[in-house]
Amino acid sequence: MMTNEEHPMNTNTFEHKKRIEQLQEKMKEKGIHLFLVTQNVDIYYITGSMQTGYAAVPQEGEPIFLVKRSYERAVTESKIRVERMGSFRQLEETIAGFFPHLSSADGKIRIALEYDVLPVQQFERLQAVLPQAEWADGSVIFRELRMIKSPFEVARIRMAAIAAHRALVEAANIVRPGMMELALIAQIEHLFRMQGHVGMMRMRGYNQEIITGMVASGDAAAEPTYFDGPAGGRGLTPAAPQGASRKVIGENEPILVDIGCCIDGYVIDQTRTLVIGKLDEDLEAAYDVSEQILRETEKNLVPGTVCESLYADALQMAQDAGLSDHFMGYGEDQVKFLGHGIGMEIDEWPVLARGFKQKLEPGMVIAIEPKFTFPGRGVVGIENTYLITKDGYERLTTAPEGLIRIKSCD
Amino acid sequence: MMTNEEHPMNTNTFEHKKRIEQLQEKMKEKGIHLFLVTQNVDIYYITGSMQTGYAAVPQEGEPIFLVKRSYERAVTESKIRVERMGSFRQLEETIAGFFPHLSSADGKIRIALEYDVLPVQQFERLQAVLPQAEWADGSVIFRELRMIKSPFEVARIRMAAIAAHRALVEAANIVRPGMMELALIAQIEHLFRMQGHVGMMRMRGYNQEIITGMVASGDAAAEPTYFDGPAGGRGLTPAAPQGASRKVIGENEPILVDIGCCIDGYVIDQTRTLVIGKLDEDLEAAYDVSEQILRETEKNLVPGTVCESLYADALQMAQDAGLSDHFMGYGEDQVKFLGHGIGMEIDEWPVLARGFKQKLEPGMVIAIEPKFTFPGRGVVGIENTYLITKDGYERLTTAPEGLIRIKSCD
Repeated sequence: MMTNEEHPMNTNTFEHKKRIEQLQEKMKEKGIHLFLVTQNVDIYYITGSMQTGYAAVPQEGEPIFLVKRSYERAVTESKIRVERMGSFRQLEETIAGFFPHLSSADGKIRIALEYDVLPVQQFERLQAVLPQAEWADGSVIFRELRMIKSPFEVARIRMAAIAAHRALVEAANIVRPGMMELALIAQIEHLFRMQGHVGMMRMRGYNQEIITGMVASGDAAAEPTYFDGPAGGRGLTPAAPQGASRKVIGENEPILVDIGCCIDGYVIDQTRTLVIGKLDEDLEAAYDVSEQILRETEKNLVPGTVCESLYADALQMAQDAGLSDHFMGYGEDQVKFLGHGIGMEIDEWPVLARGFKQKLEPGMVIAIEPKFTFPGRGVVGIENTYLITKDGYERLTTAPEGLIRIKSCD
Repeated sequence: MMTNEEHPMNTNTFEHKKRIEQLQEKMKEKGIHLFLVTQNVDIYYITGSMQTGYAAVPQEGEPIFLVKRSYERAVTESKIRVERMGSFRQLEETIAGFFPHLSSADGKIRIALEYDVLPVQQFERLQAVLPQAEWADGSVIFRELRMIKSPFEVARIRMAAIAAHRALVEAANIVRPGMMELALIAQIEHLFRMQGHVGMMRMRGYNQEIITGMVASGDAAAEPTYFDGPAGGRGLTPAAPQGASRKVIGENEPILVDIGCCIDGYVIDQTRTLVIGKLDEDLEAAYDVSEQILRETEKNLVPGTVCESLYADALQMAQDAGLSDHFMGYGEDQVKFLGHGIGMEIDEWPVLARGFKQKLEPGMVIAIEPKFTFPGRGVVGIENTYLITKDGYERLTTAPEGLIRIKSCD
């Protein structure tokens, strides 16, 4: 039976206590004395509050949220102790004061930072005020920590999944030939927003941006992009060259509805393919292959499966179907993965990609998105988000599968 | 007379040629041999395309956009020469091949990067593959370069200003007591999107995010936030603790409509204060002071004025009105500036803040936002965006000024 403390909808200190214990465990393994958590999402993960400052987590003992702004807000929200950060120049004294027992035999303090997101300038400033520190890249520690979701976190992803289901139903209801992609995504975004979407989905990767995913039809969907995914969309301008465009949606072309939202900090990722009228036979066959790949992948969604094998198996199926050039993008713009972890960011770990030797574990949440790109014609495919459980998986996206056929107007 | 090349709506190579010449000028001054531009917005600024890779600009001669993905898209969009980046590990050979004449007397190549945004991990990777390089922080060079807008850029900001004007009119038309802030901002965002808003405004600052600004009423507007501005808003959740909330808008309380959008890569920033019914006398008086500060500031918006003096003068006026505790936030959560540059990002240079000795120059675009925060009661204020001209300024935000009074329902 679940205690009240463990109830997934209860924002409790148990949740954060466990996260901190797990972080400290990893810090011990790597010989890190102090983790200065700097990124807004990571700070929220540790403290339950997203204010400016550092979540300072020692290898042992109580962590402290050193807050620059807003202290008042942090005190209200934080699940860990909050203190004013004070002067940045005196950070060394501040840390020594709050954590007097830190440091190794040789007097050095080994401090980890998230090198994958922290800008060089801020790192140099920290180096200047903490000249005695030895620095370490804590990115892997943090990404591995956040890779395993608690019931509390999964509950939030479920809420986002419900919003995405509703948004798909709305999209299928309102789409019509002659409608701009932009008009369709604007309507979807409005619906997402009214359900509590915070306005965009967060991404960890440098230069990567995503709002609510995309609606893209025909040739516009098949345009290559810099976006780290199989289909990015034409976008509105070279200054934002991905997502929905001003292209008018037509009949008999695939309409890719690859959408998600961010509810209470957690995202969902879901793709369905729509068509008004009917698809060309080869595109419909490719769509069917994407569903077959998903079915085969599901069979191996159990703890212990090596992530890269899921990608390799999917690639083999695409090859067997004669579609390897079209799989996950086209030609030199193909991406080399089948899926990705999601949580507070859309590009979390694990990645279902070559070289990713990580084994599936209970608590991972993964978006799996077999898609096929046909330049000048469109993209077809499907994407679900899954929770890995003790003995298999649970599908978190609830929208019905299958090619969504909308009757032509004439 | 304007030549066709100089026409502000003409995306021409003249525009990018000039940007590159100015960058190279600054590189010469600082002894930089090569600028490897890494950030998506900076890459777009130099190339006219926002694909993944490096815009490599030598101190003299032709720059090259080294593209990882998508090469095809970059070739279509870029105003400068495009080449495939090839293997990251061979970047040294690639650079030596394309720029054989680089390097100083001692054989060292001095390379600049944007340290203010580049993550440490990516910097370390570059250091590993370019072991002979001497590295320099190019952030100031780039921020100064982008600080002065061309007619081409101002034309885009004008389009965004028109969208913001329309959005304000819509907000005043639809707002009513009992409406959630979220419902109002969702409607505004839909209108922005249909006018070509790319979905969010970009910010350069680490951990800073903004979608379309905010609608916030009464006590929710006055809540302190981590956001680097005078008023952030309550937000929907501690996981996104700024912007519109689920608070219901009431009568006789200030409604701050601080909104903007991003059209073709360029943003606008505009604030107006609305009230359904009437404001308390002291809040209305504070609103009047915000307009007076804006009028006084405008008198000094001429080339040559030192940025920090505009903040000092405004602060003095707030003090004289007995409102210094409420100016630009409240108490310890006050921000220490009066305005900020805008362009492709909302937090550009110059900043009208203490310590900012920069003088105003023609081509700067600055959002100026005197505001007063009353904890538990609300925020009042106004914000316009201005272009500095040869002999003064031009107001780019076109929305009417003054407290917007909406008749109470009863």
